[in-house]
Amino acid sequence: MSRQRLPAEFDLIAEFFAPLAAGTPGAFGLTDDAAAIDVAPGKRLVVTVDAMVENVHFLSDDPPADVGRKLLRVNLSDLAAMGAEPLGYVMATIFPAELDRAWVEGFAAGLADDQKRFGVGLYGGDTASTPGPLTLSLTAFGQIEPGRELRRSGARVGDRVYVSGTVGDGALGLKAIRGALKGIDAAARAYLAGRYRVPTPRIALGQGLVGLAHSAIDVSDGLAADLGHIAETSGVGAVVEAARVPLSDAARQALAGDPALLDDVLGGGDDFELLFTAPAGAAPRLAALAQALALPIAEIGRIEAGSGVRVVDAQGRDRTPKSPGFRHF
Amino acid sequence: MSRQRLPAEFDLIAEFFAPLAAGTPGAFGLTDDAAAIDVAPGKRLVVTVDAMVENVHFLSDDPPADVGRKLLRVNLSDLAAMGAEPLGYVMATIFPAELDRAWVEGFAAGLADDQKRFGVGLYGGDTASTPGPLTLSLTAFGQIEPGRELRRSGARVGDRVYVSGTVGDGALGLKAIRGALKGIDAAARAYLAGRYRVPTPRIALGQGLVGLAHSAIDVSDGLAADLGHIAETSGVGAVVEAARVPLSDAARQALAGDPALLDDVLGGGDDFELLFTAPAGAAPRLAALAQALALPIAEIGRIEAGSGVRVVDAQGRDRTPKSPGFRHF
Repeated sequence: MSRQRLPAEFDLIAEFFAPLAAGTPGAFGLTDDAAAIDVAPGKRLVVTVDAMVENVHFLSDDPPADVGRKLLRVNLSDLAAMGAEPLGYVMATIFPAELDRAWVEGFAAGLADDQKRFGVGLYGGDTASTPGPLTLSLTAFGQIEPGRELRRSGARVGDRVYVSGTVGDGALGLKAIRGALKGIDAAARAYLAGRYRVPTPRIALGQGLVGLAHSAIDVSDGLAADLGHIAETSGVGAVVEAARVPLSDAARQALAGDPALLDDVLGGGDDFELLFTAPAGAAPRLAALAQALALPIAEIGRIEAGSGVRVVDAQGRDRTPKSPGFRHF
Repeated sequence: MSRQRLPAEFDLIAEFFAPLAAGTPGAFGLTDDAAAIDVAPGKRLVVTVDAMVENVHFLSDDPPADVGRKLLRVNLSDLAAMGAEPLGYVMATIFPAELDRAWVEGFAAGLADDQKRFGVGLYGGDTASTPGPLTLSLTAFGQIEPGRELRRSGARVGDRVYVSGTVGDGALGLKAIRGALKGIDAAARAYLAGRYRVPTPRIALGQGLVGLAHSAIDVSDGLAADLGHIAETSGVGAVVEAARVPLSDAARQALAGDPALLDDVLGGGDDFELLFTAPAGAAPRLAALAQALALPIAEIGRIEAGSGVRVVDAQGRDRTPKSPGFRHF
């Protein structure tokens, strides 16, 4: 991105961020030290935070509107994984001094679009400068009835393992953007890149799973790693049948050209689909939910006694990915 | 700070951050995608966010425990300025890959100390890596009765302007740490550095001002700039008598050696005292509050019709600082 001198902090807030707070009464027009959030009677507040760093979580050349959308959506995905209804967010935007104002304008436009789409508003924020890369941190708020939260720790032996949408698009999309994915057509490349840049938080599904799923998580570290989080916190093991993992047409095309990409599909992250477990008897209600939301839900495995996650192919051979999921350090 | 390879993200969380969440039931042991916050019946949630960047908001050589304390305290100060009772916080810690684990240990120890001191707990967080400077973002939560929030916009013509504690120590402390403050003794130097590194959020004062002050803010951008925020959002002007601005003995010592430092006292930031306006009739209750809290409250000026902030000396000459307060861009 091109780097020019940004307007002063207060002008940035007035020009780009205050409009994002205009529909949020508790934001006090971003003029105060703090904001007020009202939760519906009988609900409790749910909160999550996710940070993104330039060239770690997004690329310098990514469209700024997409970066804004992704920042909000990865947090909304965490709320979805808990079954919460989104309310709004606060954020810290830490800009290099030489960032172009057009970048901030595009970033705010992406947030504005998604605020309407997901029915959330900006409550407040902090803007600072850095000699390093552009760094963004967003804290999202939702609400849910106390005790109804979907947790990672609720998986039980005998549960079926389910995942929404398709898996692996995020990791393959990053490869496609980096030019490291050969032999797929332009449409497939664009589809995968879009899935990486602008994931879809499964908010309605998360709320629909309350009272139905025993455990849930969103696929951010990678299918195998995230199922590992469920297995570990629940004190159980899990087995996944690789052949049942749902793939997009674009991912199928990529895998047909290079079967070794299965490791990226099972081990990569950034899909932001919901991965959850539910008793076998929940299948009819899950099918109805999938139909109502026009969102496929695939049964991909089961919870068993023991520990850890195994991925097996149709012949029963071990296909567990070697990478334990994305690690920052 | 020395830079060595950090342990993996999950180990960092388990070793250093999960203990900070141990006393916070809604944090779910930091194992889940989001956390739950319960607000007392009849209260609403108050939220604020502040970020800190290495060598912008703190120095690489600052003790890591002090960095943790300052990160929490600047946010608690924002809650105090609104009159809220603190509950807890979430944070994003964005570490350089080569950061020493002892730094993280010290940082967490500072937070642990202050959690006890201020009765707050960690609800959740995100840990990521950066090729740039260490970057921290903290979102703090408090609670207050709806409509009782202290706002910047409530100042009225005729109000007196008050400030707690002493002003200018933060800016002079930063100068002292940088070796740019001559002619003061070692004790004064240490005092000022401590005020910069570990400010004291005026939480009890903020709560005591609810229903008493018309407007409030914390001194973070600088006395003149922050009073300017009150004046602007309230649609009034303000005049401050420089001679009435309360100074620490250390600041007096510095000013005696170099009277030009008055600009730093009035224009510098990072004091985190409460600056507020109240009707003249509130003086007896403010005096009682100051005594109960063992915290001096000084009347330093008044609110008048018009706009802007003027600082005048004992002879009525203009002493308004030239700097409009700290600006990031």
